[in-house]
Amino acid sequence: MSRIQKSSIVRCGIPQRNNNKRCLRGRNIKLEIEYDGTNYCGWQVQKNSRKKSIQEVIEKTLRKIIGEKVKLIAAGRTDAGVHALAQVANFFTRSKIPKARLKIALNGLLPKDIKVARVNDVSLNFHSRFSAKAKVYRYTILNRDYSSALLKDQVYYCPYTLDIGAMRRESQALLGKHNFLAFKAADKKAKNPFKRINRISITKKGDLIRIDIEADGFLYNMARNIAGTLIEIGRGRFVKASLKRILASKNRRLAGPTLDARGLCLVRVKY
Amino acid sequence: MSRIQKSSIVRCGIPQRNNNKRCLRGRNIKLEIEYDGTNYCGWQVQKNSRKKSIQEVIEKTLRKIIGEKVKLIAAGRTDAGVHALAQVANFFTRSKIPKARLKIALNGLLPKDIKVARVNDVSLNFHSRFSAKAKVYRYTILNRDYSSALLKDQVYYCPYTLDIGAMRRESQALLGKHNFLAFKAADKKAKNPFKRINRISITKKGDLIRIDIEADGFLYNMARNIAGTLIEIGRGRFVKASLKRILASKNRRLAGPTLDARGLCLVRVKY
Repeated sequence: MSRIQKSSIVRCGIPQRNNNKRCLRGRNIKLEIEYDGTNYCGWQVQKNSRKKSIQEVIEKTLRKIIGEKVKLIAAGRTDAGVHALAQVANFFTRSKIPKARLKIALNGLLPKDIKVARVNDVSLNFHSRFSAKAKVYRYTILNRDYSSALLKDQVYYCPYTLDIGAMRRESQALLGKHNFLAFKAADKKAKNPFKRINRISITKKGDLIRIDIEADGFLYNMARNIAGTLIEIGRGRFVKASLKRILASKNRRLAGPTLDARGLCLVRVKY
Repeated sequence: MSRIQKSSIVRCGIPQRNNNKRCLRGRNIKLEIEYDGTNYCGWQVQKNSRKKSIQEVIEKTLRKIIGEKVKLIAAGRTDAGVHALAQVANFFTRSKIPKARLKIALNGLLPKDIKVARVNDVSLNFHSRFSAKAKVYRYTILNRDYSSALLKDQVYYCPYTLDIGAMRRESQALLGKHNFLAFKAADKKAKNPFKRINRISITKKGDLIRIDIEADGFLYNMARNIAGTLIEIGRGRFVKASLKRILASKNRRLAGPTLDARGLCLVRVKY
């Protein structure tokens, strides 16, 4: 064994063919994570928040299991109170732990409101956020005359009669690539405001209305602002073709309110 | 106005035609209640429990609204951690509060894990428990290899492969009127152990298995013991026709374990 090979074993924990930068990262592990965001400040650490972040809880648990400090890269940095059915996050490690054992260990040590659905080895080039082709967010509205005791933290309660047909028709104006500034939180710095919405579906089952939005990216609060505008349309507060006009205006003040975080869930990330 | 009429107005708060016992009770109001039982000691007050009972929370809230101390009579006295989608409870009052206003006031003042779905005036003879013809309890099992962050308090997690066909076939032995002593909590005094199961259905949707049991009455822990026995059958731990034999034995030790309260929900009371 050459000296170069030996030193790379020491640094990486696994044998490497060459001594480039990638070898230092060893493995790239992809997690699919379900969480109830109610008791967290969101995915990322927030200054001035007393609540923990989901990211730090998982990173600390990983450190206990693999004895290594790792940094999780998530597909979507969900806000405080927002849930996930399948958030995706990856991390680099030199640990040799089998993926099945890692999943069992994580689910054994994580709190009951954060669980890992899948663990997979992926290519070293995989990046949860940059490799993602699209994300699907779901906004759930409870539409009846009393709120729900059983779904209290997972739906937005709306007691008003909603015209689902009008919501569906208007929502189609959002399809395709647009400048979504009108649906972006006013207090956040500008990122590229152009996003492509591939699909928007509004379905009703019993008292629950689900708004599913698939896009190549989301501006800050975009999903919650679109849901807030659609509810106003459902209540008959906007004239016909309003959504198209609001979108074209790029003016946040013309759109509806930002709905509660509790109704929002990251349901899928597509690669 | 005669003296008798006057005195009855004073006692009842509403004019009465005659001065019999029923008039003292004024109105009989029926509530349909949804609750998340996680943070309660059950429907009834429990000695030595630090948690509140659902009954006392609603009774105190009613007292605030109608200014009268009332006693709620429930259809099913659910245990600690057991949920309800439509528990039924009635109370007698002399209050004249309109039912729509009572519902709004209750839902405004009740905690977010107890909500009132419906308020109705019913005949003075109506008794939530004794008038009930049947109750439907649902036991929900999450059947996959990791527990759920989003449904953590509302499902029982079972990672083992289950033979749903066998569970369905065996469950049919419970239909009809039987002595259900084999499925009754061992530490409780004997009530009439004969109950009639009208319907038992086992359905699977995605990772969720629902066991719905409709019966004219349930012994203590009966639904959770039946679910526990059915899971053992699904796992292949009992030979064919075991459920029939266990039922006939009247021996609690032969049946499966009592499953977690979190998986159980009172979904309907039939009158």
